[in-house]
Amino acid sequence: MSLKRKVRIGMIGYKFMGKAHSHAYRDLPFYFDTDIDPVLQTIVGRDEASVKRAADKFGWLSYETDWRRLIERNDIDVIDIGTPNHLHADIAIAAAQAGKHIICEKPLAMQKEQAFTMWKAAQKANVIHMISHNYRFAPAIQYAKKLINDGVIGEIYHVRAQYLQDWLMDADFPLVWRLKKDICGSGTLGDLMAHSIDLARFLVGEIKEVTGMMETFIQKRPVEGEPTMADVDVDDAVAALAKFENGAFGVFEASRFGKGNRNGNRLEINGSKGSLRWDMENMNTLQLYLDNDVFGMQGFRTIHCTESVHPYAGAYWPAGHGIGYEHTFINLMHAFMQGISTHVNPSPSFEDGYRNQVVLDAIAKSASNGARLKIKY
Amino acid sequence: MSLKRKVRIGMIGYKFMGKAHSHAYRDLPFYFDTDIDPVLQTIVGRDEASVKRAADKFGWLSYETDWRRLIERNDIDVIDIGTPNHLHADIAIAAAQAGKHIICEKPLAMQKEQAFTMWKAAQKANVIHMISHNYRFAPAIQYAKKLINDGVIGEIYHVRAQYLQDWLMDADFPLVWRLKKDICGSGTLGDLMAHSIDLARFLVGEIKEVTGMMETFIQKRPVEGEPTMADVDVDDAVAALAKFENGAFGVFEASRFGKGNRNGNRLEINGSKGSLRWDMENMNTLQLYLDNDVFGMQGFRTIHCTESVHPYAGAYWPAGHGIGYEHTFINLMHAFMQGISTHVNPSPSFEDGYRNQVVLDAIAKSASNGARLKIKY
Amino acid sequence: MSLKRKVRIGMIGYKFMGKAHSHAYRDLPFYFDTDIDPVLQTIVGRDEASVKRAADKFGWLSYETDWRRLIERNDIDVIDIGTPNHLHADIAIAAAQAGKHIICEKPLAMQKEQAFTMWKAAQKANVIHMISHNYRFAPAIQYAKKLINDGVIGEIYHVRAQYLQDWLMDADFPLVWRLKKDICGSGTLGDLMAHSIDLARFLVGEIKEVTGMMETFIQKRPVEGEPTMADVDVDDAVAALAKFENGAFGVFEASRFGKGNRNGNRLEINGSKGSLRWDMENMNTLQLYLDNDVFGMQGFRTIHCTESVHPYAGAYWPAGHGIGYEHTFINLMHAFMQGISTHVNPSPSFEDGYRNQVVLDAIAKSASNGARLKIKY
Amino acid sequence: MSLKRKVRIGMIGYKFMGKAHSHAYRDLPFYFDTDIDPVLQTIVGRDEASVKRAADKFGWLSYETDWRRLIERNDIDVIDIGTPNHLHADIAIAAAQAGKHIICEKPLAMQKEQAFTMWKAAQKANVIHMISHNYRFAPAIQYAKKLINDGVIGEIYHVRAQYLQDWLMDADFPLVWRLKKDICGSGTLGDLMAHSIDLARFLVGEIKEVTGMMETFIQKRPVEGEPTMADVDVDDAVAALAKFENGAFGVFEASRFGKGNRNGNRLEINGSKGSLRWDMENMNTLQLYLDNDVFGMQGFRTIHCTESVHPYAGAYWPAGHGIGYEHTFINLMHAFMQGISTHVNPSPSFEDGYRNQVVLDAIAKSASNGARLKIKY
Repeated sequence: MSLKRKVRIGMIGYKFMGKAHSHAYRDLPFYFDTDIDPVLQTIVGRDEASVKRAADKFGWLSYETDWRRLIERNDIDVIDIGTPNHLHADIAIAAAQAGKHIICEKPLAMQKEQAFTMWKAAQKANVIHMISHNYRFAPAIQYAKKLINDGVIGEIYHVRAQYLQDWLMDADFPLVWRLKKDICGSGTLGDLMAHSIDLARFLVGEIKEVTGMMETFIQKRPVEGEPTMADVDVDDAVAALAKFENGAFGVFEASRFGKGNRNGNRLEINGSKGSLRWDMENMNTLQLYLDNDVFGMQGFRTIHCTESVHPYAGAYWPAGHGIGYEHTFINLMHAFMQGISTHVNPSPSFEDGYRNQVVLDAIAKSASNGARLKIKY
Repeated sequence: MSLKRKVRIGMIGYKFMGKAHSHAYRDLPFYFDTDIDPVLQTIVGRDEASVKRAADKFGWLSYETDWRRLIERNDIDVIDIGTPNHLHADIAIAAAQAGKHIICEKPLAMQKEQAFTMWKAAQKANVIHMISHNYRFAPAIQYAKKLINDGVIGEIYHVRAQYLQDWLMDADFPLVWRLKKDICGSGTLGDLMAHSIDLARFLVGEIKEVTGMMETFIQKRPVEGEPTMADVDVDDAVAALAKFENGAFGVFEASRFGKGNRNGNRLEINGSKGSLRWDMENMNTLQLYLDNDVFGMQGFRTIHCTESVHPYAGAYWPAGHGIGYEHTFINLMHAFMQGISTHVNPSPSFEDGYRNQVVLDAIAKSASNGARLKIKY
Repeated sequence: MSLKRKVRIGMIGYKFMGKAHSHAYRDLPFYFDTDIDPVLQTIVGRDEASVKRAADKFGWLSYETDWRRLIERNDIDVIDIGTPNHLHADIAIAAAQAGKHIICEKPLAMQKEQAFTMWKAAQKANVIHMISHNYRFAPAIQYAKKLINDGVIGEIYHVRAQYLQDWLMDADFPLVWRLKKDICGSGTLGDLMAHSIDLARFLVGEIKEVTGMMETFIQKRPVEGEPTMADVDVDDAVAALAKFENGAFGVFEASRFGKGNRNGNRLEINGSKGSLRWDMENMNTLQLYLDNDVFGMQGFRTIHCTESVHPYAGAYWPAGHGIGYEHTFINLMHAFMQGISTHVNPSPSFEDGYRNQVVLDAIAKSASNGARLKIKY
Repeated sequence: MSLKRKVRIGMIGYKFMGKAHSHAYRDLPFYFDTDIDPVLQTIVGRDEASVKRAADKFGWLSYETDWRRLIERNDIDVIDIGTPNHLHADIAIAAAQAGKHIICEKPLAMQKEQAFTMWKAAQKANVIHMISHNYRFAPAIQYAKKLINDGVIGEIYHVRAQYLQDWLMDADFPLVWRLKKDICGSGTLGDLMAHSIDLARFLVGEIKEVTGMMETFIQKRPVEGEPTMADVDVDDAVAALAKFENGAFGVFEASRFGKGNRNGNRLEINGSKGSLRWDMENMNTLQLYLDNDVFGMQGFRTIHCTESVHPYAGAYWPAGHGIGYEHTFINLMHAFMQGISTHVNPSPSFEDGYRNQVVLDAIAKSASNGARLKIKY
């Protein structure tokens, strides 16, 4: 019987992210020696039959149908927000005011002002706050961060990142919430490029100016459950050029029309002494080029980031035995629980979510007015 | 609160495989809708302090220090054998006689006669019996099986399989149990090539004759905890040529001296209409070549086996979101629990373990006497 | 003894491109059945000793030290321009006026007005004119073109192309002519991105608007042969976002600071029915994804473009036996000779060079003023 | 006008290898500074119309229809043998007796005794003799040889090589000479595995014992030009296990039934300090793993063997600009011409051809009698 401190989770949302977060809370104590354990206390959804089924399936002790009820409860320490984007702010601010720690899915908010308010509310309440940029927690990315910090690839000249999916290319695919601006704020920009911007900010640094371009290839789609069509008012694809404060040069692209790319979250970074390449579809490997290898023996090395020296690898399996998508969330939740335990706020925080949102907003504005824009936090 | 039937597990061994099996039992109900749930009842190890720690870490309800005690207990339904190889037979036979279902790590036994006795004991006791050839349960392998069964690659001409590791190349690495013939029976043969033979039997069919060759590159190693050296009496590397009953031609190789290959479990199958390639270090992808593709557009396709149509994928994540090593065990345990639930013995069974052992023994004998040998079951 | 018509070449420039063109002229008759054969008549260079050595090495019958002399000669049918960029226009216009066919290295000119003048001069003189965008002539690219024309990948949504090299990253590398704006016009823009723009125009269509960004990472370099430093006034890296007339969305990047990328000329095209990927560092293969493959068997196919059905493959070797960089020039020269033979101007022509230059100029201007610009031919 | 010494070639055979050798002789002086130049003096074929066409196409000065006439001619310095295998010995011995230098396609002979006689005849006549194992001359292979010689990968434990093609899988494909034992001596063994054995002997060392296995999947085929079927009396596939004199462990496989593998000539070598991998279908790259790379940064490096430090690269193009299949022959002919110039016999010589044949014969015999066999030269 574990004597560890229990942290009671209340989670809003029970679909894709609800499943991923539920699993991470459950699996965390198996892999990591933490001094606190998450308890799957209450899951929230508006449809009672569905949320009851999810509670049973994912192992939650109870459920609610109104998120406001969750905030009021005294037996909840953490609010986990996995709702559509337009609800993030109301929930997060209420949670902060109730003194609960918060983890929120990305993008943090509908636009930067909302994100700023959320950050400041969490800060004022002195609660732990995180945004769920799970790809930061792939061991290959954490190892890339260490290599960059150690100066292994030198001064960074280039970052190029693509996040390509193809699930939306059928013109008969209906107008789900991710295609409605008043619910999601933006399309691929907030859904996919937000991840690439987070990885770039994590690995390279702050962005100082951007140019953007957007496209909506299919402009009308069937309304769900109705025999009518309605306008798609968000982007199917977005691209951006960026300059970073440290002089690096960035090229970003995200699309849901990248046929054959199911979850093609890729990046390459070129520095003065070496380069890195990563692709989420083969997430365990990192490509590393080192300029000071013997001339003639230079080439990109394919590193399987499962050696004992690689981040998080010690928690899992021996070298060569890879992990999967879900482990990015286990690692993320480990950071979150450590944050609660030590009361030192981990990254990425709501501040990261806010800064990310500032960049996203500038890209959207530039896409609209055609001008290169300075980033102002 | 789940009303599913509970199956109480007693597991012997708590290291690498103990961790993998424990996790699989725990995670199974999250991903699969089964009508029985495994209970982590008792874990067994000879060193009390260590097994107590393992029980706590992995979530077992109790522990024992003598496996015979486990067999006697009435609150155990399943015996899971993860001990060194020389103990498999005694434990399995005792478990069968006590009417308990059995899952045993590979290789099943020290030699074929022992494996045969184990199989017959389980069969006589009418218990469910499995051997833990987890790689069969990689979705890409299960999908390969389906493609072969559906005739997609036609008549099979070739299978070539390599299983290469490199953890034993340091001459100072001590004489652990996997290097002592009286404990493990053989070296890479039973440890690694057993997996390749299982995959080939699963995907291609029964082997009818073999030739073998073995090598021990480092013939003396330090005795653990003593300032002496002792002989390594098992193989560091093994290779075999095989003919299959259906006419296929097989080439197998396993080594712990394959520098740079951490867990290089690879195979290629060539048929009259197509070919397949797989590599465990990138386990989510399967390469498929189809002869009836349009001439000029032919080539190996890289399939990410995470589509809803792929085996097990529905239990996990959306397309493009890969899984890891541990999921092969979750899938294996799912088959085991289904077997217990339906009382239809799943594959690979102890019969598979026996047939595998017959092939391994013939390879070892051929390596010793230089002759090609017929396989007789 | 061949009775084919002879076409006598006069080539200006004898370094990298001089070698590539010389070889192509020599090797062409071996591989292709043409009705005209090129004769290596005269090579031109300002330094007599060097050009004499080159003539001997590459197999030219004679040499000159002044290009104007070449234009005057009656025994020259073709002028091949491989000089630094600032000389292209004078030579090409003089050649046209002298009624000689012309092939010119890229970029065609220093800016679009000059390119336009060159095109019109060639057109007026009714001579055959080509620009040496050799990568169009990789068999994989020609096959990609055929697949796109045949509708195999459907309507095109995306093209993304990178051309990355790393030979200029040493700060001690001197200020060669490719770094001086008055000689080369631009840096990576004209040298590398010109190739990507040509491939995109060839495969996707005309560009209608662009945004650009440029950077010069090392702004002062040693003057060759002098103990002083001087400003680099061209770009080390350039990126551009583009929209095409047919609605496609383009992202382009070129750099000489892409450490580890020696000649990384890569592109990916996503259409409504499929996708293509190509990388010059592995030029014989083309990746093709087809949406109408059986669900579950979908994936990028690696096609080795050496089958008899692939463009140019019949001239070379059996399937699986790849060709190299130099063959792109043999194929290009084949098109040029066919153009001379039939007097039908092949692509890419000076018109293509002009249109390419209009795009390059717009990218440079946008990089400077931060605005998105319409392309006007 | 070149003042180099001319060496006049007489070549017998004008199909695939005739084309490859012709091109190599022609292209050699362009790329290499040699002190002798090959002259395409006379090409030989039995069918006058065909050989006349070949002479014209490939650039030979004259032709003959009887190889014996070629031997008699005084204006021939070199005999190049590209005939079916059963003629190699007669031609080579006659050529040696006539004092002509000889290059012969592989396998050298029909069996080892014949090969021995050829070797001794050439040795006695003091002429330069080579066997055309062109894959040795891929820059990546030559570089691998250098790395091994320099001790970079340490003591060699493993070599595994596959040579897989798929052009013979159609049952309607007729009984061409490569399928008739009295003309070719063996099937895939002499055609494909001979190359792998040569690479292994070059890179690893001499073989001391082997076991073999063979298969003929399609045992009757249509006779060319007749409405009858006849037996295929050679192997469609062959595999062999080998031990080398230096203790290395070898696994070899060759097949013409490896669907999807057009020219899959691959090898991997594992040593105590590192490993190498190579695949002819991507011939410009070599994979190198180094054990003494920093722990965590270890992985196979993809080296593009086109740097100035790589063998032969200086003759061709800048880094990153690959070469093709035909260049292996140019490099081979360069070695041959250097051998003639210096009168130092290059490798691989007829002695290499003989030693290769001894291994091939032992593999065939072992495949037949099922016993492991010692190699005796």
